[in-house]
Amino acid sequence: MKRPICILGLGLIGGSLLRDLAACDQPVFGYNRSASAAHAAATAGFDVSPSLEETLARAEEVGALIVIATPMPAIPMLLDALLLHAPTCGFTDVVSVKRKVWELVLERGMQDRYVGGHPMAGTADSGWEASQTGLFQGAAWVITYDHAPDASPEWISLWTDVAAMILAVGAEAIPARVDSHDAAVARISHLVHIFAEVLAVVGDTGGALAQSLAASSFRDSTRVAGTQPALVQAMCETNATAVIAALDEALIMLHDARDSLAAPHPDISDLADAGYAARVRFEARHGARRESVSPIKISSRPLLRLHPGTPGWIRQLEHAESLGGRIEIF
Amino acid sequence: MKRPICILGLGLIGGSLLRDLAACDQPVFGYNRSASAAHAAATAGFDVSPSLEETLARAEEVGALIVIATPMPAIPMLLDALLLHAPTCGFTDVVSVKRKVWELVLERGMQDRYVGGHPMAGTADSGWEASQTGLFQGAAWVITYDHAPDASPEWISLWTDVAAMILAVGAEAIPARVDSHDAAVARISHLVHIFAEVLAVVGDTGGALAQSLAASSFRDSTRVAGTQPALVQAMCETNATAVIAALDEALIMLHDARDSLAAPHPDISDLADAGYAARVRFEARHGARRESVSPIKISSRPLLRLHPGTPGWIRQLEHAESLGGRIEIF
Repeated sequence: MKRPICILGLGLIGGSLLRDLAACDQPVFGYNRSASAAHAAATAGFDVSPSLEETLARAEEVGALIVIATPMPAIPMLLDALLLHAPTCGFTDVVSVKRKVWELVLERGMQDRYVGGHPMAGTADSGWEASQTGLFQGAAWVITYDHAPDASPEWISLWTDVAAMILAVGAEAIPARVDSHDAAVARISHLVHIFAEVLAVVGDTGGALAQSLAASSFRDSTRVAGTQPALVQAMCETNATAVIAALDEALIMLHDARDSLAAPHPDISDLADAGYAARVRFEARHGARRESVSPIKISSRPLLRLHPGTPGWIRQLEHAESLGGRIEIF
Repeated sequence: MKRPICILGLGLIGGSLLRDLAACDQPVFGYNRSASAAHAAATAGFDVSPSLEETLARAEEVGALIVIATPMPAIPMLLDALLLHAPTCGFTDVVSVKRKVWELVLERGMQDRYVGGHPMAGTADSGWEASQTGLFQGAAWVITYDHAPDASPEWISLWTDVAAMILAVGAEAIPARVDSHDAAVARISHLVHIFAEVLAVVGDTGGALAQSLAASSFRDSTRVAGTQPALVQAMCETNATAVIAALDEALIMLHDARDSLAAPHPDISDLADAGYAARVRFEARHGARRESVSPIKISSRPLLRLHPGTPGWIRQLEHAESLGGRIEIF
């Protein structure tokens, strides 16, 4: 990609992106609000500044692609800073909720400079010290395209560069519109966080014996309760409508299970069978991914090759979205 | 331990126990209903028979300690077989629910020959082919003592041998009465299974995009949904009262979260903060266990040393139970 990349926020995602892009000789520089983390990144040899204004001025000067790699709460302020200090740069983001960011972008009339992104990668840790190379290898990275029907040639070029950046770090670019994305992640991520918090509390209030007996199933199912509470709040509260829909489905099943358990002859076979079948399908789909013991990592996601801007490319994006498929650019 | 050990059922738990006991030169033999698994175990060099009657007759002849290592549904039949073919042998079990087994034992008047057990170890896999050495290393293994106030010297000797067997395979013996045990595992195991089933289904019904985006948090939180449905049914249905109590606590929190998300200004900080604090406490307690990266594995469970049958030993057991502590015999 010709344009340099400028990353705002060097936490787990932004820091890992900086590391991977630098490793593939992509010109990349960054900003971090915490001077100590900025200093740590600079000491590690990266081109990093603790000044937002200077970083944005530089981005504007070199025509950089800006990656906003901060959690949701910082987005409005950063969009305003972009309007002021980098008024022509294209930008993307990594926030785990896309409707809310899209609305903030629309309110400011920035939609022809914006392509939404969401890498499905991470650990329960956060901050520059948690960043690592290879974090995105084989991971899904959603790229939004709601603006495609109204797009300028500049936007199509921006979209192509964001896709290229995603592929450059080994991730798989999955096109999705903001509402489809938000509904999907409510099910497979945000609800998972809520369940983990609840399980952690129920185990904790069980006293010393319960805590002593907690083993690997409890450990794994509560792992993401170790995520900073502010991050969990940001994702769930910002995506409240979709999370409520997923939670309501879950609550129906949990109340059914409760009723079954309270019957004279408890029988939760419906839930146990359905959950088992769903998990087996999940394992079958994900068998070839990096969690597999197989040395050959073949993506299980269908591949669609497309050329941005050509007639029919929006239909191709919709097709990829409906399949959860990944794209390549030619 | 002087008496040989006879294991009935050579699945994940029974098979792994057979491997570990044989490895420490403990005389041990076993029975498996499936002739093919019995053959596989025999081929691997273990002393195994597909005949229950012959195995029990042999156990009676040599005065073996019998370990019933089958799931719940087989327990009544096996107790009846013990009455018939091994009428004097002491025995233990590994079922994940202890009240129901205790009642079956009491109905048959076998309480002076029985000590309940439950190893908190396992994977989502099952069967002899899933068995492995070292499965119990550092794991909690509950040993029940409801009969202690009425115990004969023979029972105290049996209890001591069961504790010795637990320690021989590297597990930590945690004394608990059956109802305390069942309430604890409802929280940290059975509820975890129900949540995993529900999450697996909600993710699966989200369509191809949701399934494509599912990443490590979804994978880990649904892992135990890969457990055979019949095993999940057996544990939850048999422990219905305690599971309902844990589930009701969880449902209150989930409905609170839903209400918070549906408010004009969603705020789930109470849940996010409580879940995070609970998980941090869990990690602190379990930091030195085998999931730790530290090379030194020191148990985080308090240790109580006791001599079975001496005055005050029941009070010591109750004390250990209240702490979730492990015991050593002297």
